[in-house]
Formats: sequence, C-alpha cells, structure tokens
Amino acid sequence: MFYQIPNLINPIVVDEPDPSAANALQEGLGGQFGEMRTMMQYLFQSFNFRGNAKPYHDLIRSIATEEISHVELISKTISQLLDGAPGYHGKKFDVPGKDGTTPLEMAKEQKNPHHFIVGAQGSMPVDAAGNPWSGSYVHCNGNLVLDLLDNLVLESTGRLQKCRIYQMSSNKTLRSTVAFLIARDEAHEMAFAKALETLGVQWSKLLPIPKFDSYQYPEVKKLIDAGINREQYHFSLDGSEMSKIFSGSAPANDGTELITLKEPKKNFPVNPAPERPEEFAPGLDPELQEMADALEEAKKKIRAKMN
Amino acid sequence: MFYQIPNLINPIVVDEPDPSAANALQEGLGGQFGEMRTMMQYLFQSFNFRGNAKPYHDLIRSIATEEISHVELISKTISQLLDGAPGYHGKKFDVPGKDGTTPLEMAKEQKNPHHFIVGAQGSMPVDAAGNPWSGSYVHCNGNLVLDLLDNLVLESTGRLQKCRIYQMSSNKTLRSTVAFLIARDEAHEMAFAKALETLGVQWSKLLPIPKFDSYQYPEVKKLIDAGINREQYHFSLDGSEMSKIFSGSAPANDGTELITLKEPKKNFPVNPAPERPEEFAPGLDPELQEMADALEEAKKKIRAKMN
Amino acid sequence: MFYQIPNLINPIVVDEPDPSAANALQEGLGGQFGEMRTMMQYLFQSFNFRGNAKPYHDLIRSIATEEISHVELISKTISQLLDGAPGYHGKKFDVPGKDGTTPLEMAKEQKNPHHFIVGAQGSMPVDAAGNPWSGSYVHCNGNLVLDLLDNLVLESTGRLQKCRIYQMSSNKTLRSTVAFLIARDEAHEMAFAKALETLGVQWSKLLPIPKFDSYQYPEVKKLIDAGINREQYHFSLDGSEMSKIFSGSAPANDGTELITLKEPKKNFPVNPAPERPEEFAPGLDPELQEMADALEEAKKKIRAKMN
Amino acid sequence: MFYQIPNLINPIVVDEPDPSAANALQEGLGGQFGEMRTMMQYLFQSFNFRGNAKPYHDLIRSIATEEISHVELISKTISQLLDGAPGYHGKKFDVPGKDGTTPLEMAKEQKNPHHFIVGAQGSMPVDAAGNPWSGSYVHCNGNLVLDLLDNLVLESTGRLQKCRIYQMSSNKTLRSTVAFLIARDEAHEMAFAKALETLGVQWSKLLPIPKFDSYQYPEVKKLIDAGINREQYHFSLDGSEMSKIFSGSAPANDGTELITLKEPKKNFPVNPAPERPEEFAPGLDPELQEMADALEEAKKKIRAKMN
Amino acid sequence: MFYQIPNLINPIVVDEPDPSAANALQEGLGGQFGEMRTMMQYLFQSFNFRGNAKPYHDLIRSIATEEISHVELISKTISQLLDGAPGYHGKKFDVPGKDGTTPLEMAKEQKNPHHFIVGAQGSMPVDAAGNPWSGSYVHCNGNLVLDLLDNLVLESTGRLQKCRIYQMSSNKTLRSTVAFLIARDEAHEMAFAKALETLGVQWSKLLPIPKFDSYQYPEVKKLIDAGINREQYHFSLDGSEMSKIFSGSAPANDGTELITLKEPKKNFPVNPAPERPEEFAPGLDPELQEMADALEEAKKKIRAKMN
Amino acid sequence: MFYQIPNLINPIVVDEPDPSAANALQEGLGGQFGEMRTMMQYLFQSFNFRGNAKPYHDLIRSIATEEISHVELISKTISQLLDGAPGYHGKKFDVPGKDGTTPLEMAKEQKNPHHFIVGAQGSMPVDAAGNPWSGSYVHCNGNLVLDLLDNLVLESTGRLQKCRIYQMSSNKTLRSTVAFLIARDEAHEMAFAKALETLGVQWSKLLPIPKFDSYQYPEVKKLIDAGINREQYHFSLDGSEMSKIFSGSAPANDGTELITLKEPKKNFPVNPAPERPEEFAPGLDPELQEMADALEEAKKKIRAKMN
Repeated sequence: MFYQIPNLINPIVVDEPDPSAANALQEGLGGQFGEMRTMMQYLFQSFNFRGNAKPYHDLIRSIATEEISHVELISKTISQLLDGAPGYHGKKFDVPGKDGTTPLEMAKEQKNPHHFIVGAQGSMPVDAAGNPWSGSYVHCNGNLVLDLLDNLVLESTGRLQKCRIYQMSSNKTLRSTVAFLIARDEAHEMAFAKALETLGVQWSKLLPIPKFDSYQYPEVKKLIDAGINREQYHFSLDGSEMSKIFSGSAPANDGTELITLKEPKKNFPVNPAPERPEEFAPGLDPELQEMADALEEAKKKIRAKMN
Repeated sequence: MFYQIPNLINPIVVDEPDPSAANALQEGLGGQFGEMRTMMQYLFQSFNFRGNAKPYHDLIRSIATEEISHVELISKTISQLLDGAPGYHGKKFDVPGKDGTTPLEMAKEQKNPHHFIVGAQGSMPVDAAGNPWSGSYVHCNGNLVLDLLDNLVLESTGRLQKCRIYQMSSNKTLRSTVAFLIARDEAHEMAFAKALETLGVQWSKLLPIPKFDSYQYPEVKKLIDAGINREQYHFSLDGSEMSKIFSGSAPANDGTELITLKEPKKNFPVNPAPERPEEFAPGLDPELQEMADALEEAKKKIRAKMN
Repeated sequence: MFYQIPNLINPIVVDEPDPSAANALQEGLGGQFGEMRTMMQYLFQSFNFRGNAKPYHDLIRSIATEEISHVELISKTISQLLDGAPGYHGKKFDVPGKDGTTPLEMAKEQKNPHHFIVGAQGSMPVDAAGNPWSGSYVHCNGNLVLDLLDNLVLESTGRLQKCRIYQMSSNKTLRSTVAFLIARDEAHEMAFAKALETLGVQWSKLLPIPKFDSYQYPEVKKLIDAGINREQYHFSLDGSEMSKIFSGSAPANDGTELITLKEPKKNFPVNPAPERPEEFAPGLDPELQEMADALEEAKKKIRAKMN
Repeated sequence: MFYQIPNLINPIVVDEPDPSAANALQEGLGGQFGEMRTMMQYLFQSFNFRGNAKPYHDLIRSIATEEISHVELISKTISQLLDGAPGYHGKKFDVPGKDGTTPLEMAKEQKNPHHFIVGAQGSMPVDAAGNPWSGSYVHCNGNLVLDLLDNLVLESTGRLQKCRIYQMSSNKTLRSTVAFLIARDEAHEMAFAKALETLGVQWSKLLPIPKFDSYQYPEVKKLIDAGINREQYHFSLDGSEMSKIFSGSAPANDGTELITLKEPKKNFPVNPAPERPEEFAPGLDPELQEMADALEEAKKKIRAKMN
Repeated sequence: MFYQIPNLINPIVVDEPDPSAANALQEGLGGQFGEMRTMMQYLFQSFNFRGNAKPYHDLIRSIATEEISHVELISKTISQLLDGAPGYHGKKFDVPGKDGTTPLEMAKEQKNPHHFIVGAQGSMPVDAAGNPWSGSYVHCNGNLVLDLLDNLVLESTGRLQKCRIYQMSSNKTLRSTVAFLIARDEAHEMAFAKALETLGVQWSKLLPIPKFDSYQYPEVKKLIDAGINREQYHFSLDGSEMSKIFSGSAPANDGTELITLKEPKKNFPVNPAPERPEEFAPGLDPELQEMADALEEAKKKIRAKMN
Repeated sequence: MFYQIPNLINPIVVDEPDPSAANALQEGLGGQFGEMRTMMQYLFQSFNFRGNAKPYHDLIRSIATEEISHVELISKTISQLLDGAPGYHGKKFDVPGKDGTTPLEMAKEQKNPHHFIVGAQGSMPVDAAGNPWSGSYVHCNGNLVLDLLDNLVLESTGRLQKCRIYQMSSNKTLRSTVAFLIARDEAHEMAFAKALETLGVQWSKLLPIPKFDSYQYPEVKKLIDAGINREQYHFSLDGSEMSKIFSGSAPANDGTELITLKEPKKNFPVNPAPERPEEFAPGLDPELQEMADALEEAKKKIRAKMN
C-alpha cells in the first residue's frame, strides 16, 4: 500500500520555457527506457516476486517506490518547461482568441503539437518522438538473476540517454532534473550490480555505463559531493532488509561506499502551476468557483448546526 | 513524493488457480478502463494541476495514490489465480522438463499463453485480449470540469466492466478483489460526481453507473455494510483539504453520506509467492543463495570489526 | 455529404448464436483487409482525388458509400451472432449476478473476452486476433493507377479471406452475410480491374482472385443468379458518370456483362436488438424511462398550448 | 444503408497553403477526439443499439451520419491547406525532378513528412503527432446512459481541442472549417446533454465545455447568428423520432431553443483538386487518358449499334 | 552483402500438426525476445558499428547472419506444425467448401485464427498473443559495452522462454527446432559474455541463464554431445576476426572451450510444402500452370533459333 | 541458410551530414513500403511457399536475399547522413558535455530526436514520422497469384515514394542510394509483372509505376546505362531456376530485355564509422581496449605454448 506527501524529491530550478527541451525530456518520462518504464517494471517485479529472498524483494520494491517520485519530478519539470511557452506570461484574457487573435500561433511549429492541442502545456505519457508509452516495455521474467540483469541494462540505457539529453540544453529547469536523474540512475546501477555481485559477478572497471567522469558536469558534481549517487532509500513506513545488499563497496570499484537510508535527507515544496486561459485551463472559472464557494459555506453552516 | 508499506489494501481470499479468470481480470488491470489507467490518469492530472482549487487537487491526488494500491491488489490477485495452474503444486524438480517431460503442457491452450511463456504465472500490463497497456489511454485535458467529467466516465466504465467480470466466475480469489473494486469504483464515482455537484450539476437518479442494486452481490454487500463505498482516503502524511468536497450527501441521492479518512481502517499482510521451478522462477537457486549468504556473513564480520 | 435510411443492404438470416463464428467474422469487419479498411480507403481516395477524370472519381466514391453499408451489415451480423450467447435468451433479471450467480461464466473462455467485458455482446472495431483497426491500413497514394491496383489487391485479399471464413462455419447468420460479401467483393474486383482495362491492361484468365467456382456455394449461387456479382450501385442522389467505366464485358472474361444501378433493387428492415440485462445493457431502465416519458408528455402539452 | 451527394456540408474558404496548419488540423480528423472517432463511435453505437428507445437510437444514428460529412469536410480542408505547399502552383513538368531538381525540398522540414512522401499533399488518417487512428478509440459500452455521457465527454474534448487549434492560425481555409466544427460540436454537446436531461440530470451552468463566449470569434459568430449551434439534422430519407429529444430549451440554460431539421439549409459544391506532377499525382497521364477515351468511344459505338 | 542456399541450418523432424504448439512457437519467432528481434537487432548494430574494434564487429555481424537462418528455421517449423491441421491431408477438392461444406471448421477455435484466415496455415511475424512484431524491440545504443550487455539479456530471455516452450509440448517437430535454438542461444550467451569477459567482467557461476542442466533434455543432449552449444559460425565468404574473442574457456566456467567455425558442419535440404486447396493456396492452378508452361516452351524455341 | 561478405551492393557517396534528409530516407527503410517490409515479406513468402512452381519460388527468394543488402545499404546511408551532424567532426572530448557545454544542442530541433537520444546518430527501424516498423506490414497470403500482385503494388509504391524523396534533397549521399533503389525497384516491378505475364496478363503501357522518364534523373541515368534496372540477381551459392521467368522482353514493353545474373558485377568496400564521443559511442574506451588487448596477448601465448 502507498502513501504520499505533496513535496518533490528534488527542487526544480526556474528558467525560461523551452518546448523543444520539454520534448527531449519526454524521452526520460515516457520513452522505452524512461521513468514510467522503471516505475512499472519494478512495481510488477515486486508484485510478482517469488521466494524468500527478502533483501532482493525489498531492494526492488524500494526503487520502484522512488521511481513514482521520479515520474512526478520529471513530469512537473516538463510541464514547467512548457508552461507559458506561447509567451503570454499570465496575461489575462476575457476570451482566448477573441476577435480572431492567435495566442497559440507558435504551437503548430513545436516538436509535439500535442503539448498544446491535447496536453494544455503539460507533460504527457509519450516519448520524444510522440509515441505513447507501452506496457510491452515492462520486463518481468520471474527469474531473479535475469530480472536483475535486465534492470541493470535498463538503468544503464536510461542514464546514457539522459547524459545525451543533458548535452542538448543548458536550460536550468531541464538541467536541475536531468542532473539529479543521472546521479540517481547511477545509484540504481550500483544497486542492481551489487545484487549481482552478491551472486558472484565481478564487474572490474565496466561500471557505470556510460563510462565517463560525470563529476565534470557542474550540476552533477554538486549532487555527487552530497553523496546522492551512492545512497538508496527504502521509503518504507515499516522497515526494510535492503541494506543487506546495498552496503559496502560500490561495484564501480572506485573506492566509494553504498549507504541505505529511509528517505532523502530533504524534500521540496512546489508551487501550484498558474492558470492558462489560452488553453481553457482556468482551474475553475469565476462563475463555477462562486458556486463551489457557496456550497462549501452551506456545508459549514450545516456542520456548525449539527455540533 | 511517495511512501510504502508491504501490506495490501484488501485481503485476497485463497481458492483454486483459474487462468481464464486471471485473463478476464487482466482487463481490470491493463485494460483501457483498468486500474493502470486510473492510476496514471490521476497522477498526470495531479502533476499537471493548474490554479488554486486545492480541494479538487487534493481529491485527484488522493485517489491517484489509492489507485497504486489497486494496481498492487489486482496484480497480485491475477498472479495468485495463475500460480500453480499447471497443477504442480510446488512439487520439486531437479530440472524442469527433465527427460523430456511437459510440466507446462496445459499452457499452450490458455487464453493468453504469455502468462506462462513470458510472465512466469504472473500478472502482466495487458488487457483481456492480450493488448499491452497504452499511454494514449491517459486523458489529462488541463480543463478541470472536463477532467472531472472524464474521470466520472472512466470510473463508471471501469465499474461496469468489473460487474461483468464478477458474473464470469465464482472463484473466491477473483471475487474478493472484484467485489472490493466494484465498491471502491462506486466511491470514486461519488467523488467525481460530488465535485461536479459543487459546480452546480444535479444528478437526480442517474448514479451510480451501471444502475443496479449491488447490495445483492454477497461479497459486495459485506463491504457496503462496512461503509466502503462511501469512504475516501487521502493517504497523505501531511494533511488534505479533500473533505471540503468529499462530505455531505452522496450524489447517488440515496440518503447516504460521504466520509473522508486518512487511510483504510485496516490493511492486510501478504505471504510471498512460492517458487515455480517449471518456470525457472526459483528465487535464488541454492548455489547462488550460498554465495549471497557467504557474502553477507563476510559483511557482518567487517561491520563487527569496524565497531 | 451523406444520407441514410434505417434499412440494411442485405438480410441477416436468424440462426443460433456462435461467438467463435462472430470472432472469425471480425476479420471481415476490423481486419487489415476488412470492410472498415475498404470504407476508409475509398473515402480518403475520394476526398483527395485529383484531376478531371470524373468517371474514375465517381466509381471510387460510389464504392466507398456502399462500404459504409457493408460495415453496417457485417457489424450487425457479428452482434447477432454474439447476442444471447451466454444462453439466457432474454430471461428477465432484477439484478444480474444476484446472489453471486454467474450468467456470463462462458464468456471468459471465448475467443475474444472483450466481446462480453467491453462490447456487451456486440461487434467491435478489431480483427479476429483482437488487434484494434489502424489508420495505417488506409492506402491513398495520390497516383490513380497505383490506387486502382492497390484497391484490386485489397478486394482480392478481402474476398480470399471471406472464402476461408465461409468454410469455417455453416451457421446461417454468418453465411448469409459472408456469401453476400463474397459476391460484392467480386463485383468490386471487376470494377477496379475494368478501370485498369480502360488503361490498357488485359487480364486474360487471372480474375477473379481467388480463382474458383463460387457458383458451387449454395448461398453465393443464389446471389449470382440474381446478378449481384456484376452490378455496381452509385448511391448518388445527384447523378453519376460511373457507368462510363462499369459497363460492357466483365474483366473476368467469362462472357458476363457489367451493369450500373443507382442502388440495390431491394433493402431490408431490421428489428431492434433485445435488451441484455446481464450486460447492464437495458436500453433505458424503467425508472429512467419513466422520467423520459414524463418529459416528453410535458413537451407535448407545451407544444399544444403554443399552437 | 447510406447515400451521398458530391457537395460539402460547409464551404471551404480559399487561402494560402500552410502545411503546419494542415498538420494541426489532422488532430481534428484522426486524433483520439477527432471526427473519425465520432463517426465510428456513433456508427458502432447505432449498429449495436439495444431496446426500443427509438428517439435515442435515431439521435445517435443521425449524428453519426453527419460525422461522415465532417470527416469529408475536414479531410478536404487539410488537403487544400497542403495542396501546392511546395510552391509550384500548378507549373507543368514533363518529368518531376528532371535534371536533378528538388521541387519537394521543403517537404523534409515539414511537421509530418508523410504528407508529401506518402499522402501526395493530401489528408491522412493520423493525428497531429503522426500516430495512425486506432479502433481502440471507439467506445460502445452497450449501456445507454454511459454511452451518452461518454459521447458528451467526446464532443466536449473535441470542441476544446478545436478551440485551441482555432488560436493557432488565422489562415482562412483552416478557420472556415474549424469555426464550423466548433459550432457543430456545441450542437452535439447539446444533443447528448439534452438526452441526459430527459433522464433527470440538471446541468445548471456547466455547459458548454469549454465554457467561454465563442460568439466573440468572428467566424463562429456568423454561424451562431445563423443558428448553426442549436440545430440538429437527421439526414434520414425515411423519417426520424429525434425531435422528441432534440427540441425545447438548450441544456446550456442560456435561453436558446433546440431545432431538428432534415438536413442543413444549404450545401456547397466543390471543385476537383488540381493535378500535382511533382507527386506523380496526375490523375491520368495523357497516354493513358487517350486509351481510356478510345475505349469509351468504342463502347458508345457498340451501344449505338445495339439500339 | 548477403547470399543464400536453399538448405536449412537444422533438420525439422516430421510429426503430427499441432496448431497450439505452432502458436506457442510464434513467441520464438515474432515475440519481443524472438528470432526476428535478434536478427534485426544484430543487423542494425552491425550496420551502425563505430570504431575499429573489428573482432567485436565481426562477432555481432556473424551472429546476425546466423539469426536470418534461425528465422527461416523457426518459420518453417511453425508452418509445418500448422500444415494440414484441419485434417484434410492433401485431399483434392475441385472447389473448397463446395456445397457449403466446412473444411476449415476447426480454425475458428484455434489460438490464433489468423493462422488460417490470413496466413494459409503458415507462420506469421507475430507473437504467441497475436501482437505483430515491432521495430521498437530493436536496441542499438551505439555504446558497445551496453549493446553487448543488452544482447546478453536478449539471448538469456530468449533461451528462458524457449525452455518454457520446450515444456509445453512433446511434439517432435516443435522439439527438434526448440532444442536446437536452446543450444544455439546458449552459444550466443557465451559469445556476448565472452566479449564482456575480454573487458574485465568475471561471471563466476552466473551463466547460462536460466541456470539448469539442459543436458537432461534428450533432444538438447544430442546437440551438446555434438558440441553445438560451444561453436560459433561466421558465415563470411571473406574471412573474419571473430575467433579473437570466441575462443578459449567458456564464460560458463564449466571447463568447456569455445570454437569458431566458418559454418555448421552440415546443412539440410527441405521439401516444398504441399498445396492446400482449402486455403486457395494451390501454387499455380492448372489453367495458369498451362499458360506458364506454354510461355516457357515458346521462350526455349526463341533461344534455340537465336543460337 | 544465409552467408555474408562485409561489402556493400552499391557505393555511398560522401557529402555533408543532413539529418532532415536522413529522416526522409527512414521511410525507405522502416516505412510501410520500405526495404524492411520487402525483405521480410519476401522472406516469409519464400519460407511459406507451397507447391512445385520452383522458378516462382526461386524468384521470390532471390529478391528477398537482395533486400537484406538493401536494408544494409539504406541503413548505412542514413547513418552517414546523421553522422557528425552536431558539427563536431570527430573532435576529441575527454568528457562529452564537460563544464556543462551542449555539443548536442541542435539535436532537440531535429525531425526525429530519437536519432540522437536513442540511435547515437545511426539509423533506426522506424519511418519518416517516427513510427516503429510493424509486422502487420508483411503480406503473405498463401495464394501465389495474389502474392505476386501484392508484391507488384509494394514495389510500385516503394518506387513512387523514393521518387518523391529524390526530389527532396540534392545531397549526394542520399542521391546515390535513392537513385540505385529507384532503378532496383523498377527491376523488381519487372520481375513480378513478368511472373504475372507468364500467367496471361498483358500490361500494355501501364508500367513502370509511377510512369515517367527516370532516365532524366542524372544519377538514375548512369545506372540505367549500366543496365541495372533490367538485371536480377539470385545470390544463390547453389543454382537457381529464376531465369525461366526473368528473361525475354521486359513487361514495360519498351523494347528492353531482362537478364538474370548470380550477383551484381561489383561490390563495394566500406569504411568503419568514426567514434562519436558526444554520444558516448566510443567503440571501446582506452581503459577497456587495454584489457581486451592484454587478454588477446595472453591467448596468443597460450596457443603458442600448446603448439
């Protein structure tokens, strides 16, 4: 069973909107190796887990839970990159498009016009080429060794693609999230590689994949300095045996150590997104808000009377 | 951000395996109107929410969180219906299929052979016709009124399909979960209908959809008697304004009242699934288990020395 | 612009329900070479037609219009084959599944469980393997010669598949529709082959495809005797130049002649399908019907007053 | 059974070609909430209709028939927006691309290169992100109340998306069609909302969705002034009971009245599209045209002799 | 560039037709981890290979070429399992289905009716649940280490699924091919694992996946005894550096050695499949055969005269 | 069974990278009428061939084998058009994106961002709109006449689309391959049309499709002058009866003759693609290369000792 708080696992830095950057980032959300895949793959592996190897079960379930928060983080990052892209910056309309104006003119030239026609300047469960996410991406083989190896390939491919996306834009909104996910994917590579190490594999100098010094990316450096790429959280309100695996020397064989924690040391509040009238995305329009307020007022009175 | 406990939101009753029943139930998991859709649709609506109508935001996010636990429940129910279906009941093999035997012979005649070839007698993100779940199922229009109406249709269609599935099997494993989901879908219908009621709509005698007396289903009756179909949980570790909407008379207009709670009154532990050697799904085979144990022992000694 | 009458282009004979036959027939509706494809392909070719070759334009548009009626015919045939398949024969329930009964038990073993979970014992836009129809099936190349050749292949493949379906069942409901479509596909083969003949091709003994004596199928014989396989209708309320092509000797080179008509000599009324309570498919339940009646009564009075 | 005339349901205004606008408009044709969906969804609901509630049956079938003409209208509008986009304006080539020239150079930068490689500057059954239309979009639940509610959501989402597309371009070709479809979608919202009103629902101020004053769009204003958004046509050559529902006050509760007609007061002839040699889309090339003419001449003589 | 001989890489044993076994085997052909995937994945990796690591390039290209022959082998095995399944065993018809008979009656109950309606008792590019093969299965990351690891997972999953299929049927036609592919997949596991071993990884006791003694399967034992699971062929008419990797001790660490050869020691002729009149699959019908023969006779005479 | 040499069937001319041209060319590789379709369609028709009409069987199998080399050619052409597109021309990085630079900035604006995020500046099995290739494209009807006609339509449509792509770019890399494929598609049109001619069809002036004088394309002229468009190769290491069909006058009826050869007169070596560090596509990084070298050295010594 699952619980939530409204905060984010990492802060999203404010920068200009950039719909092309948003579109590239969709690969990390709804692509074949994106966060929706990791989330659903590990959830299914956790739900279908067989046997008594509890530390392995806990490891998979814990990372699965973290991935839900990653889907949240990257989804909101994409939305922020799209939000206000047409350049209206919150300007008020009585009626969008009144007198035949074209507040969304730029939209028809963007990488994925669905971001404006369908998604109202918000994220969607699709990849950077506009293909919807598919259940066929989820691998759950019922063979623990194979699942661990598949997960290692998944995290490695996801990290590779995010390193490429990092190089596509210096937009700080995109960078804050991509750098965090690069660091976390590396932690997850360590987790699955370590689990295979407990079964006898020696990785020598193969990891991480892709093999390069991510410490030289300024945004990633800060996170590595904070130890983000060697921690794993179990997010359990009820204990965990994950640390039996996720501890000791990292399988990157670079002298670092793995550390298990309940949850990240901090979490981050998030502001509600503004209304976008040109998308007919007003939250509640005033007439309806008034009705809702009146109803709530009435309820309060009834409650008052009943007490 | 999200948290977890290992327990289930509803207990799964033990009965015989039944792969056809499992296949029908896949519609409720990976179908166009199944729990994966509700989970992802409400998560996306929550992540992309605009404006300050916090009670509506909280309502959607809370139901989204519940749906993750529904995906867990229905996924494990399907797995339980499949588990042991080939009739081996945990019999030990040195080598599955040794001497050319055919322990999985029945599998090639089952509704979805993937349950045995791919899924190792476990649930999959597909529907009852074998189509993988698609991101195109998720509707997130950025227009609150339309999203509420779309969610009402989604819950109604999901409930209609589950009522049909209920009539397809008297297997208690299937029934315990389907009855619970029928009751919860009704609660969610009430939630979205009530939100629209705050905006002026009067539903008269239209709800719930499908319109019939589910009290006459024995398994549902028990849940209604316990009030399950008029409660909604927010699952928040940090408060919620959902009760501003989800309270007062139910929009079914049948004299019942809506009640907001933090979480279900009980949750239910779950046993690990057994190993299935004929699927090469052993958890860890003894040779590898031994290695893992040795490694852990070594770690313990190191930790002991370091302290 | 399009018009309609409620009648069918061919009668559907009554026989027992047969869900497997219904499923096979889905190929003819929603398959890659089924009636939805022919309908949409010819409509798109008609809408995108270039140049002044009006007789060719009229030919394509006329067959497109006929295909809508074919979609109707085959869709209703499938529904009739499914209707009542669970064996309840219109029996009245207060509440389907009351006391935990299983009126849809057989459904979970049927070829496509969607026919019962999703489609309420009705036809669906899918093929015989359960794949949804796809827009990628539509070929509209903008090159008239190629489009004509593609259409000839389409009709030939459709006819081949229907001849195979004919051999799968002697159910009269299926047979009445399949025999009609075999005869009509042959007429359409003649239409496109004749159009190519006007451009110089000589077909010798190649047509029709598949090459066999369909006169020996009793149900087809009757239709051939009535001339159905050498007629083409333009369905236009405003004239047509189609007969400039569709006239003279048939390109099957068997001594027959082609005849253009406005519409089939007869059309056939159809009874409404019965209510299916076990699918919660009641038309209107009594309580709602009562409301609707009351409203209409009120309207009548208002109208009476106003006159 | 269905009939046709060659004219359009609304005129298409001439303006410059605009492939990006054409691509945006594809969402309204082949998107999940576009005209192909409404056409097929209502046709399937009509073919699978159960019970004797004839006015509801007639309502759905009539709107289905109108949607075929919408598919025609939007399809031809897209084609007109694409036609001549490469800038050749009918210039004659002996051989396209002769001497290695690149008359289609711009095509490889357009939103959907398929419009030029596959579709010959014509419309295609795809959405604005290039995904082919899917049969899974069609909802036909067999439960009348749910189908009406689903249809209301469908029309509302379609209208929302078209209002966004309206704001993306001031091209008159696009605008003439989009404005007409916004007005008609509103009429269809009224139709399904009214049908639910007959079953007891009161909509208060919720409709139409999206809620805004479309009267301030000049192109829509003209259509509203002509009453287009409160009329519904049954297109039946054989009577209809639709007016039992579609009459009286509009469920927008704005003082307007609903009016049932046989068909639109006017329809509009359409010119054939020009040949596009750079697409090898010549209609008939001269050599083949000559053969066709010779053949027809010969047929005439034969007919003359025979009389 | 590629060449061919008409022979097979392994013989197919004759046994009774079995359409369910054929359907299960489709997973090994058109499934996500089937032979079409391995063939296309390695071809793409070979075509897109970067850098001068020629032995690795040769290794991938050689296995790619072998996979084409695997697609051929498994495709023909499926066809043989389907061929004659309706029970007509080559019986002559003048006209299939004459007098309304139903020679394909069993077809509508088979796992995938497409095998009879579409595929004429032949294999198709689909999986065991009827989903068509998708280009999205192909992974070609452009990072050699990751591609090798992905290929190892691919071969392991393919082998796991084939081991399950082995246990589903004792049909000798299925078994001869499945046993061969289990042995070859193990050889390919060794190939990619060995390539990773050259880069430093030590596999200890992890391989092969799934880990079990396949020597106890009688059909596999024969192939292992012949050394099939430790050989790799390069199929190059022009030399290869593959043996720089594929030689020395196997990474299964079981004392076996890897051996590189040009091609398998034997290959196997194959008989043409019989005609199937009930599928209208006659090869050439007599009338057309006669024309073809006459034409060839004429050609011969012309050639004779010209010399 | 299949063999290979590392050379290409046609040379690829060097020119500037052009990602839009690469994207257009994807249609010819992974589109519905591209080379992957022809390759798989003819392979399946060859594997499922029925009856003794060996010349027809040989014809299909031979063209199938050629298509594998076409997939190779077009795949490598696309890769070459993409390679270096970001403008780094092989410049060495220690760490791509070091200090937060954006070497892939242009990528997010390209037609298919997957070419850079997923494919590492390499070709992919998708079409020009980014849709993955689908097994549903493959037609294998089991009826020889229909398969030949379908193949003729396939080659004609493929040629039509390539003629359009030719007109989209004067890039010499694209042109060298497109011109070759236009000439080869015409040869394949001749092959299937000739096979139908042996069965009695007379094509008059209909062929080739599209009908135009491709001799006026300079790059095609050179190939026609060399006779490329009237040759067919059987690629068999073991003889062929294909020439019984592919000989005599071409069915284009333009006075040309068809010629059967074993293989093209020349084939063309190809250089390895350079490493692309900004894609983390290094071949082997130096540290890993060193390990591999050390291992090979050790192997050599062992071999030396053993001899």
